[in-house]
Amino acid sequence: MNETFSGEGMFETDHSCRNNGSYNSRKLKSKGLFTVEQIHVSADFIFGTMATDSRRLGYVRAEIAGISHRYRMIPAVPQAGDPVRLLVTLGPSITADQVCVYYTTDGSEPNGKRGEPAPGSAVAVGQRIVSHWDTLLWGYAEEWAIDLPPQPNGAVVRYRIEAWLREGTESVWYSEVIGATEGDGSVVGHPGPGDHYLHEMGAEFHLTFFRRPRTCAYRVGDEGAPDWLGETLIYHIFIDRFHPGPGRQFASPPTPMGIYGGTLAGITSHLDYIASLGTTAIWLSPLFPSPSHHGYDATDYYDVEPRLGTMADLKHLIAAAHDRGMRVILDYTANHFSNQHPIFRRAISDPHSPEREWFTFTRYPDRYVSFFGVAELPQLDLDHPPARQFMFDAARYWLEQGIDGYRLDYTIGPSHDFWTMFRAVLRTVKPDCVLLGEAVDTAEVLRSYVGRLDGCLDFLLLQAIRRFFAFDEMSASQFAVFLNRHLHYFPPGFYLPSFLDNHDMNRFLWIVRGDTRRLRLAALCQYTLPHPPILYYGTEVGLSQRLDVRHADGSGHPEESRLPMLWDEDQDRELLEFYRRLGSLRRATTAIWRGERQFIHIDDQYGQLAYTCTANGETWLVALQQAPRAGMIPLPSGRWEVVLATQSADIIGGRVALPAYGGAVLRRI
Amino acid sequence: MNETFSGEGMFETDHSCRNNGSYNSRKLKSKGLFTVEQIHVSADFIFGTMATDSRRLGYVRAEIAGISHRYRMIPAVPQAGDPVRLLVTLGPSITADQVCVYYTTDGSEPNGKRGEPAPGSAVAVGQRIVSHWDTLLWGYAEEWAIDLPPQPNGAVVRYRIEAWLREGTESVWYSEVIGATEGDGSVVGHPGPGDHYLHEMGAEFHLTFFRRPRTCAYRVGDEGAPDWLGETLIYHIFIDRFHPGPGRQFASPPTPMGIYGGTLAGITSHLDYIASLGTTAIWLSPLFPSPSHHGYDATDYYDVEPRLGTMADLKHLIAAAHDRGMRVILDYTANHFSNQHPIFRRAISDPHSPEREWFTFTRYPDRYVSFFGVAELPQLDLDHPPARQFMFDAARYWLEQGIDGYRLDYTIGPSHDFWTMFRAVLRTVKPDCVLLGEAVDTAEVLRSYVGRLDGCLDFLLLQAIRRFFAFDEMSASQFAVFLNRHLHYFPPGFYLPSFLDNHDMNRFLWIVRGDTRRLRLAALCQYTLPHPPILYYGTEVGLSQRLDVRHADGSGHPEESRLPMLWDEDQDRELLEFYRRLGSLRRATTAIWRGERQFIHIDDQYGQLAYTCTANGETWLVALQQAPRAGMIPLPSGRWEVVLATQSADIIGGRVALPAYGGAVLRRI
Repeated sequence: MNETFSGEGMFETDHSCRNNGSYNSRKLKSKGLFTVEQIHVSADFIFGTMATDSRRLGYVRAEIAGISHRYRMIPAVPQAGDPVRLLVTLGPSITADQVCVYYTTDGSEPNGKRGEPAPGSAVAVGQRIVSHWDTLLWGYAEEWAIDLPPQPNGAVVRYRIEAWLREGTESVWYSEVIGATEGDGSVVGHPGPGDHYLHEMGAEFHLTFFRRPRTCAYRVGDEGAPDWLGETLIYHIFIDRFHPGPGRQFASPPTPMGIYGGTLAGITSHLDYIASLGTTAIWLSPLFPSPSHHGYDATDYYDVEPRLGTMADLKHLIAAAHDRGMRVILDYTANHFSNQHPIFRRAISDPHSPEREWFTFTRYPDRYVSFFGVAELPQLDLDHPPARQFMFDAARYWLEQGIDGYRLDYTIGPSHDFWTMFRAVLRTVKPDCVLLGEAVDTAEVLRSYVGRLDGCLDFLLLQAIRRFFAFDEMSASQFAVFLNRHLHYFPPGFYLPSFLDNHDMNRFLWIVRGDTRRLRLAALCQYTLPHPPILYYGTEVGLSQRLDVRHADGSGHPEESRLPMLWDEDQDRELLEFYRRLGSLRRATTAIWRGERQFIHIDDQYGQLAYTCTANGETWLVALQQAPRAGMIPLPSGRWEVVLATQSADIIGGRVALPAYGGAVLRRI
Repeated sequence: MNETFSGEGMFETDHSCRNNGSYNSRKLKSKGLFTVEQIHVSADFIFGTMATDSRRLGYVRAEIAGISHRYRMIPAVPQAGDPVRLLVTLGPSITADQVCVYYTTDGSEPNGKRGEPAPGSAVAVGQRIVSHWDTLLWGYAEEWAIDLPPQPNGAVVRYRIEAWLREGTESVWYSEVIGATEGDGSVVGHPGPGDHYLHEMGAEFHLTFFRRPRTCAYRVGDEGAPDWLGETLIYHIFIDRFHPGPGRQFASPPTPMGIYGGTLAGITSHLDYIASLGTTAIWLSPLFPSPSHHGYDATDYYDVEPRLGTMADLKHLIAAAHDRGMRVILDYTANHFSNQHPIFRRAISDPHSPEREWFTFTRYPDRYVSFFGVAELPQLDLDHPPARQFMFDAARYWLEQGIDGYRLDYTIGPSHDFWTMFRAVLRTVKPDCVLLGEAVDTAEVLRSYVGRLDGCLDFLLLQAIRRFFAFDEMSASQFAVFLNRHLHYFPPGFYLPSFLDNHDMNRFLWIVRGDTRRLRLAALCQYTLPHPPILYYGTEVGLSQRLDVRHADGSGHPEESRLPMLWDEDQDRELLEFYRRLGSLRRATTAIWRGERQFIHIDDQYGQLAYTCTANGETWLVALQQAPRAGMIPLPSGRWEVVLATQSADIIGGRVALPAYGGAVLRRI
């Protein structure tokens, strides 16, 4: 198909940038803070234990070296009457020829030894299925299957996996990779003293990974996500930075680490604005009392941070949002809290206090396992029943106050066992609440939350979108192939909310150096894909930043992606209007994202991509010109009309003409 | 079971070394060449493209990045009437959503484009099965299946695999990883100008791998290996170093690169000696005319190197060997030959000669693809029909002269397509000839020769044996688990001849610093495992070396593992007698290696391993004390007798007492 329009004359090169720089960028420039030429955008920053090639390699090696399970189950979500097959891989260094699973269905901790279950536990004996060669570790791995009997709906099956050598002495228990040391000895993740160090990399790779023994669990008869999640459009608010409230102004703290003064009342007073974007759910950054501007270090799980407002303000916000058809989702951190939290204060002030057992001290009282080694964020041992119960109770409490669900911070910290029981508890309180994981991890790990959460934030799509639309690191065909494989990898009913940026990374507009054409194009794609879009506050009005969130030397300015919201004349109204039309289109036209998607045109040379979506007899078409020059994309036969364009779009002789970095949605008429 | 004999009093520590140093070692010492204390043995040397962790990583990445197939077929060896399912994986960077296979059954080259077969070819369209996440390359890979129709027995199905994006422009063809560059730019393997460079490692990994497009093939109705291979015991002779012939003495060349003067007649005159070891097959190092002492650089594929003897000498050797029930296997190099070969001479002397097409010139006439970059060893393009036919014809010729089979040098060089047709040709000449591959590669690659060769030399077992018995790098349980998985990985009827050393690596006796106790123990294990043992000339009489085959700086003395055979009073007669009894036991008692093997005792602390083998109502037991002190290994109930001991073995109260590094074979009576 490319031959029909490959002539040079078919293109008009557009080196002028019609919308070069957002209003905000221009404003910052006028203040002399920077010029476009001075912007140097670092390589995209994805934090976590797998941010680099060598970490990924270390992770893969550590994973293969141990007993690997990753919640591979057949079926993935068992219903009443289903027997369940668990799949387990023994790595080359696991000297075992027996595998069994101890399990309980009454919520108690399963246990046993060498095939003999402890009182109250049952045992299932594994069978060897096949072995394969692993070149990375230069040895054989073995696949085992363990069959568990059917259970009634609602049952939570907790299990532990043991492997041993019949003629040997040692047992190995299933464990998960939870941290690593880098070459300089610094630790990524948060291994504790009980975490055994299973696999040391060779001298060539300066990484050591830690694994932690884990109890696993699944819940029978999971009902899946509530219907409303699939259709939602989420607006993500960083409370301190959104609006200070009617008649009030943002403060001017000396650094962006300070308090700007956004409040719940500020949000409530702008619900019509939020709703005008097509929003049907609001995700609020943490609102519990906390010493920081971000709130991920709570000191109280039963109150509202006073500078954000009161419990009454929150209830008013919830009611007003519900009145407008919008749900409210809280940001909830179960993995850790503030070292100022009374429970931690008691733990370190009295060596005999029961609270000491909630944490993992490596040297009491001043060294303990914490979130990424940050002393202010002690990590809870959620396998310790009182700590676990605390996190269940607090989450239940806020649902009872009217909250509609949670975005779960650092989901990979707590175990799947924790989340399985967390969900079981919350479902009894509010059956249609949603639980969304924040897991910056592999697709396999994301999928392991099927049946345990309603979905996970889509960091993988985020990365692909930024590589294709912002960094020019991915071709149109690579992006299309990624999308196809990605969207088919997850089962229906497991949701992967999409986003272009968030509070932990450079804003999209910053990485494209203020070029709103690229932002619109990426958003057009985002809003025409199947999963719920998330819009990060300010992205819709040209909010950008002044400095990179990460410098080459490892330091950086994470707060730069959390600058105060732009209001009134500071907003890029043209961009806002585009986002409103996009939200309106998404809500009005389910076929465009729910329909069967087919790529009908891919051209790497000219950066062109087009796909159709068909449902209910409607056919929609999305055409994207991801290139610094204009182009024409051929249309399938029939008559088409342009419904929405990022800039302009003209149908000329069976083709749609798009400007540089232009895109359009068309409908067959 | 360990508790029963873990008391310290049960052990006698033996720090004196009863057989410390072989006769040869002692002799060399007496000549002042070295003392035992001076020996520094380098880390074990396994040559090839996957010798290091980083090479393995690069290989895995390059393999995953492309279209991976590795001859995964269901069934692995199709018979008449079997449909064949080919399994193919598209790596994350393969932007394709269509896969098809073009195939022929008449021996011609299959071809086609985007699903349209070329004249003479047929096409089969693939279907997507499942996708999975690959963490190393951080993307999705897709599994595809392509079903081919049944063919009659004897048919050779040749096929090529194409993948493409329906809306894209480029096709990708199946290719194999065939070489790599290291950080310093040097090349491992031998990529040519036509090999596309598919995947560059990130900046963190300084390796680049090359892939070469490949035609694949399988042969329907392969009859499997001849019966005699399973029962054989192979003696491996490096001709120039074995015996100079009746009444003649070895020469004394200034360096071991020189000619020592071993001849075919020397072998013939010592066939009784060879037979006394239980030998039923002799593997001869290359014997075609060649400028080197080793002969892996032939200048004529139809004659015998004059200094080794004549064609008549060879026929005499074959006849005399056959008279004694011993087969003769030739070392055959198809991948490359000498740059002095007339065909190569013509190729470089006349740019218009047809022979030029037999090679891959990167700059005619002085740069060309060669074996590991060695200019003296130009590599043939065996996809070029005349070159391929040449190698088929020469191999056929020697079978017609009475040879019983081939050890195939550098098997991974030529394609599986080549070997499939090679076998088809040779089976018509001599149906019970054997073809054994020399592939220093992964278990997966070894298994890919099922149905194409009769087996492969077992470099993986070699490595495990040396790590356990020589380097103390592997525990008893690790060795046992390796053996279990390794032996089950390959289908019955595919043979993996075992060996402790060969002409390309340090001799076993050298790496154990002359400790014949360790050698005997390893040999006892080797001879009681299922696959045909290979005994490298001299190992049975204490032949060792003077210098390491490899120095830390990369240089080395490969010829040190090819020193002249020890005869008469130079031989370690005690060791020889042990090897004769071992060979005799192996031949007389098939149950000991063919029986069902069960590990009955493993103790890592005391370095103990014991397994039983049961067949035909007999039960045999092998007990190994891989430790520097004596110990006792418990026996199963019943009465036992010691049949063979490496040193001594006494049954005391239901246990067998073994000295340090001692082992024994027992039989239930």
